[in-house]
Amino acid sequence: MTATTPAVGGEVGIEELPLRADLRGKSPYGAPQLDVAVRLNTNENPYPPPPELVADVTAAVGAAAAALNRYPDRDAVALRTDLAAYLGAATGVPLTVANLWAANGSNEILQQILQAFGGPGRTALGFEPSYSMHPIIAAGTRTEWLAAPRRADFSIDVDAAAALLRDRAPDVTFLTSPNNPTGQSLEPAELATLIEAAPGLVVVDEAYAEFSDRSSAITLLGTLGHKLLVSRTMSKAFAFAGGRLGYLAAAPAVVDALQLVRLPYHLSALTQAAARAALRHADATLGSVAALRAERERVVSALAAAGYDVVPSDANFVLFGRFADAPRAWRAFLARGVLIRDVGIAGRLRVTIGTPGENDAFLKVAADVARTEVVQ
Amino acid sequence: MTATTPAVGGEVGIEELPLRADLRGKSPYGAPQLDVAVRLNTNENPYPPPPELVADVTAAVGAAAAALNRYPDRDAVALRTDLAAYLGAATGVPLTVANLWAANGSNEILQQILQAFGGPGRTALGFEPSYSMHPIIAAGTRTEWLAAPRRADFSIDVDAAAALLRDRAPDVTFLTSPNNPTGQSLEPAELATLIEAAPGLVVVDEAYAEFSDRSSAITLLGTLGHKLLVSRTMSKAFAFAGGRLGYLAAAPAVVDALQLVRLPYHLSALTQAAARAALRHADATLGSVAALRAERERVVSALAAAGYDVVPSDANFVLFGRFADAPRAWRAFLARGVLIRDVGIAGRLRVTIGTPGENDAFLKVAADVARTEVVQ
Repeated sequence: MTATTPAVGGEVGIEELPLRADLRGKSPYGAPQLDVAVRLNTNENPYPPPPELVADVTAAVGAAAAALNRYPDRDAVALRTDLAAYLGAATGVPLTVANLWAANGSNEILQQILQAFGGPGRTALGFEPSYSMHPIIAAGTRTEWLAAPRRADFSIDVDAAAALLRDRAPDVTFLTSPNNPTGQSLEPAELATLIEAAPGLVVVDEAYAEFSDRSSAITLLGTLGHKLLVSRTMSKAFAFAGGRLGYLAAAPAVVDALQLVRLPYHLSALTQAAARAALRHADATLGSVAALRAERERVVSALAAAGYDVVPSDANFVLFGRFADAPRAWRAFLARGVLIRDVGIAGRLRVTIGTPGENDAFLKVAADVARTEVVQ
Repeated sequence: MTATTPAVGGEVGIEELPLRADLRGKSPYGAPQLDVAVRLNTNENPYPPPPELVADVTAAVGAAAAALNRYPDRDAVALRTDLAAYLGAATGVPLTVANLWAANGSNEILQQILQAFGGPGRTALGFEPSYSMHPIIAAGTRTEWLAAPRRADFSIDVDAAAALLRDRAPDVTFLTSPNNPTGQSLEPAELATLIEAAPGLVVVDEAYAEFSDRSSAITLLGTLGHKLLVSRTMSKAFAFAGGRLGYLAAAPAVVDALQLVRLPYHLSALTQAAARAALRHADATLGSVAALRAERERVVSALAAAGYDVVPSDANFVLFGRFADAPRAWRAFLARGVLIRDVGIAGRLRVTIGTPGENDAFLKVAADVARTEVVQ
């Protein structure tokens, strides 16, 4: 094929396809994947997996590869058992395989939840700004999205939120703790108040839980298991973003319900084997969390000293500003070799906590950018 | 925990959860995963991957594992490029990366298609019996399912089907060729007639294409790319069921449309690396296809000789009967150590073509079962 050969079917425009009306004119979700020296834009753990984890994952996958002609365990029992052991030890709650579910990233978990409990004629509610995939997954499952507000400082007014949940009675409520992209988490007592107020189900999205001192919502499962679902991911603290493993802790009946909507064999034998190997190295991987938390405090202090307003965070990222023009400020960082995230909040940008060297590079640029872009 | 400790949340019954009404009382999809000596029930390739493929997959995954802390390429460009090269060589159609899409099994491809082009207020049609996941994925995306008939011999009456498609005008039509679980495929001219008759999109599900002599529907993409989508899988001929890699060939605009509904980073770095490694060994893996086709003919002849009525097949499975009571006959096979599939067709069972030894074992039992279970 020469460069001038048109692609097969290349004359068909997307506007000629019978795309659903709500998708017309939309762009795919996702941060720019740019080749920049300092990438602090997707809340990844900056520390590559240690060599012994890589070796163990490789060996586990190699063993699984010998039987690749066979379908994987559809119920991922061994992996879910291991996840129950990890979460049980981390939270003190005696979870079993029956409490756990796993999928290709927490996005797939959340999609399955809305396929089972949301959908046409039902509503899902979130307190915005929050994880932007929640309304996108609601749209993808044709669940009506209800956006509820946070305070100006991005915290949740628990009493007002509880009243709102009683009033609007969403079928599914999302509580993100710590909240992405703002960084604050909710106390278990606050979570309990909100879950008790909500007539429907509540999903507590704990993607960043390992970076926080707060107790997990999992401690509430014993009393609120009829309406509480807790989603987690190995993408962040576990440094397993490339492996795509999200999971859920909930009452066994919730796990049974998700099995009615999951695509059969959704989780490959390689994913199951690799995630189990990574879990065996949890102590080493999670060791990076303490370092990242210390770095977070250093970054927060340095940003404040440079004249930025910084939102308190117990995750592995920080929302900061205020910029006269956040998209322009984002470009100023990028032009200086630092990729951070414009999350669409006026006057604010989000930076992921990186290695000390990456944070030094970021802070050097931040001090420079502050001189021209920050509103005092 | 002792055996008598109840599971956390174990007192919650699924009937107490606000499950969608259409899911109440349903069971999860899937064939029994039983530990039986001869497993011929899920149309797997019975030949394990050759050692050099296992070694290459292991090395590729090991290299990818070193960067597991980073998200994978969201667009899977390298893998899609390799898939385009394979399919282009197999079909003679000059496909490029823009024509290809990939996901965790063809089920996820089909789900994305219905999220983009189906959904509430839209319809999808299939000629039954066919792949039973089509209506299940329609239900999961809230697409109304229209079941259309096949002839008594399970072939499609193309003229009648074309008239039906014009009349019912489904938004999405599924044509499975070769058809699972019956085994027959459609000629490209027949496919073209049906695609031209259908006012909406047509998905040709070619999961078993490598086992057939027929030309692929991909040869029609140049003229029918505005309404034709062709799904494929590495699960069957490629002996990669455990790796979960489905893919699609279509006009670039269709691929753009699916990117509006795909979950970001849906395909792990491990899956992408492993599938690329497996594709490098396509010649060796697909070498097993010729052996399986030869075995298919042997199994068909032997079943006929034993008194069975056998549906012609150009896939890696055969539908046979006729049984007085198919579920009872299925249990008779299982009791003799052979796991085959009851696909819910009265008087018929489906057997996957295995290794010569597995087929011998199956045929020995089949001769025995015929004496008591077959209707003459």
